[in-house]
Amino acid sequence: MDVLIANNELKAKAFLAEIEGKKPLFIATIATTETAKIPGLSAAGMNPDFTDFTPPADAELLLLGRCKSIAGVPITPDGIPTPGLITMSVLRLADIPVLVVNGGVKVKPQVPYVDLGGSSGRDIRSGNSVDNVEEVIERAKILGEHLAKVSDYLVIGESIPGGTTTALGVLSALGVDAQGKVSSTLPQNPHSLKAEVVAAGLKAAGEKFGSLKNNPVKAISCVGDPMMAAMAGLVIGGARQAPVLMAGGTQMTAVLAIINALEPKALCNVAVGTTRWVTKDKNSDICGIIKQFCDVPVLAADLDFGPSKYPGLRIYETGLVKEGVGAGGASIAAMAKLGGAITKDILLKEIERNYALLMGIK
Amino acid sequence: MDVLIANNELKAKAFLAEIEGKKPLFIATIATTETAKIPGLSAAGMNPDFTDFTPPADAELLLLGRCKSIAGVPITPDGIPTPGLITMSVLRLADIPVLVVNGGVKVKPQVPYVDLGGSSGRDIRSGNSVDNVEEVIERAKILGEHLAKVSDYLVIGESIPGGTTTALGVLSALGVDAQGKVSSTLPQNPHSLKAEVVAAGLKAAGEKFGSLKNNPVKAISCVGDPMMAAMAGLVIGGARQAPVLMAGGTQMTAVLAIINALEPKALCNVAVGTTRWVTKDKNSDICGIIKQFCDVPVLAADLDFGPSKYPGLRIYETGLVKEGVGAGGASIAAMAKLGGAITKDILLKEIERNYALLMGIK
Repeated sequence: MDVLIANNELKAKAFLAEIEGKKPLFIATIATTETAKIPGLSAAGMNPDFTDFTPPADAELLLLGRCKSIAGVPITPDGIPTPGLITMSVLRLADIPVLVVNGGVKVKPQVPYVDLGGSSGRDIRSGNSVDNVEEVIERAKILGEHLAKVSDYLVIGESIPGGTTTALGVLSALGVDAQGKVSSTLPQNPHSLKAEVVAAGLKAAGEKFGSLKNNPVKAISCVGDPMMAAMAGLVIGGARQAPVLMAGGTQMTAVLAIINALEPKALCNVAVGTTRWVTKDKNSDICGIIKQFCDVPVLAADLDFGPSKYPGLRIYETGLVKEGVGAGGASIAAMAKLGGAITKDILLKEIERNYALLMGIK
Repeated sequence: MDVLIANNELKAKAFLAEIEGKKPLFIATIATTETAKIPGLSAAGMNPDFTDFTPPADAELLLLGRCKSIAGVPITPDGIPTPGLITMSVLRLADIPVLVVNGGVKVKPQVPYVDLGGSSGRDIRSGNSVDNVEEVIERAKILGEHLAKVSDYLVIGESIPGGTTTALGVLSALGVDAQGKVSSTLPQNPHSLKAEVVAAGLKAAGEKFGSLKNNPVKAISCVGDPMMAAMAGLVIGGARQAPVLMAGGTQMTAVLAIINALEPKALCNVAVGTTRWVTKDKNSDICGIIKQFCDVPVLAADLDFGPSKYPGLRIYETGLVKEGVGAGGASIAAMAKLGGAITKDILLKEIERNYALLMGIK
């Protein structure tokens, strides 16, 4: 299988063996935060105000094969399409079902979604970024547990613009050194801006590095985002019943740190699934964050858009976008379901087909 | 198995054989309608205004084993507990997972639920009872199809007070003779009141018996309820991928008639699962309605509360309540999952245990 192992080879191989030929459910956890509108922070939308529309549009793309809340598909300011295009293509190819879970969005998707009582997040510089965290976690646990009873395993992805900054915020509050280690959609990772935003948020909350080590709920409430509460609960509930593949990049490390503080035994049944673009990224360090507090395996879909005929896809090889909407984990799940019958070449062909369709290229 | 067959013995046996030993997902479709507040029509709540709280409380009961939106559990004016108590007990006994789908409720449940963009229904005497029907059906189809891909089969129940009156409304609009044939929670089935309400609704909508035979979306919009749109879509989408057990009494006949008008081939993969109290009821005729337009099998859980030590459960044998929250279908699914290891006696013991717990009986 075209899957690389970036952390804990032994457990990673065992996880891959466990999911081979199995039928997962893919869960897309969507949320928004005002943090994404800080200029220069996120590229998950044509412009900062557009970031409110990216998660619902991604959800629609997964379920309908097209967006309803916006024309076309979500793009970066440079015109690079959402990684949701990858996720949609590979899930459809492998006939993997999808459920959308709303952690807290401003714009509701025009497709079915599970509500957990969460709402969109505030700018973390307020030090008071997310409401109702404990209740959302509890509801998500129930949902995760019930869904894991019907499926062989869960693959849980996210769509939240600005999510690596809030990840840095929560990791810092929990005492995990992630400074300069979180990833970015942008070509130039704005590490110092992220650090400033997080420092402002911690200060406003009256907290500092590591001061919320034993209070992950408060860490999310102060400097986190609504995706984290939903996904942490889903993983904890799901892992009681079945393996869980957390599909995402460095944002997953914040969710892992939260789970580690809430219910560490859940991590025994968990792996992170991302892309090669994340694990090989020189401007971030997913494994360097994870190894500070746990040993969950990290798998990376060996996607390679170098041979693509479309410049808009080839550019992924330069380090733009890298990950999102669970693209890496979904690709791993698609390959695992069909036991190697799907290679990265086949995935690229399908992604190119949908890219041309959705971007209106003849 | 303690399951009776009330319609189409051949197909019913085939359906039972197909689900034996299989792992279903139970979906609770909740909705409310102002129609339930017409005095004398519904007993699914302590008083008419309380009917807004019954569906969310039922949803909470299924997922938490207790209610949050109300103290205790939903009861009839006579103090008989919700049939959701049966559903919760049997689903937990057989470890069957639950997902709540909101067709349109006034009071949101304090548990995870899927939103389909629907809202609570108006009094059908307005002739304009439900909004957004077409969109809710489309979203429910998508959800049903995805959920049926992960589970061996779906069991879909309902909780909507006033639902047999709206069922009579839609059946009449679709040209199915259900006058005097729909069931009731009440000891005295208020057939003539239901007929008056439906006649007023059809008149206000400018429609008459059978005039919407080819327009089921409009039939729901004029004289139906929000549960119908959600469940019809769920069944149509679900039946494309897996068998579907529609868990309910005479309300299911309205949903069947809607599906028959929208996508009749879905009915090939469908059965109705209810209770003996419905199929043996002398004041309603579920099979007499169904046989007018299709031949779907009707199964009935052979529940018998006669031997119960609790008067509040024994009273089910006098014909009160009879069905609701998918109690019959859930009981069938529980027995089918464990291949006869669960009998009606075992079910009763578990129901009695939860009854005592929730009613505070020592």
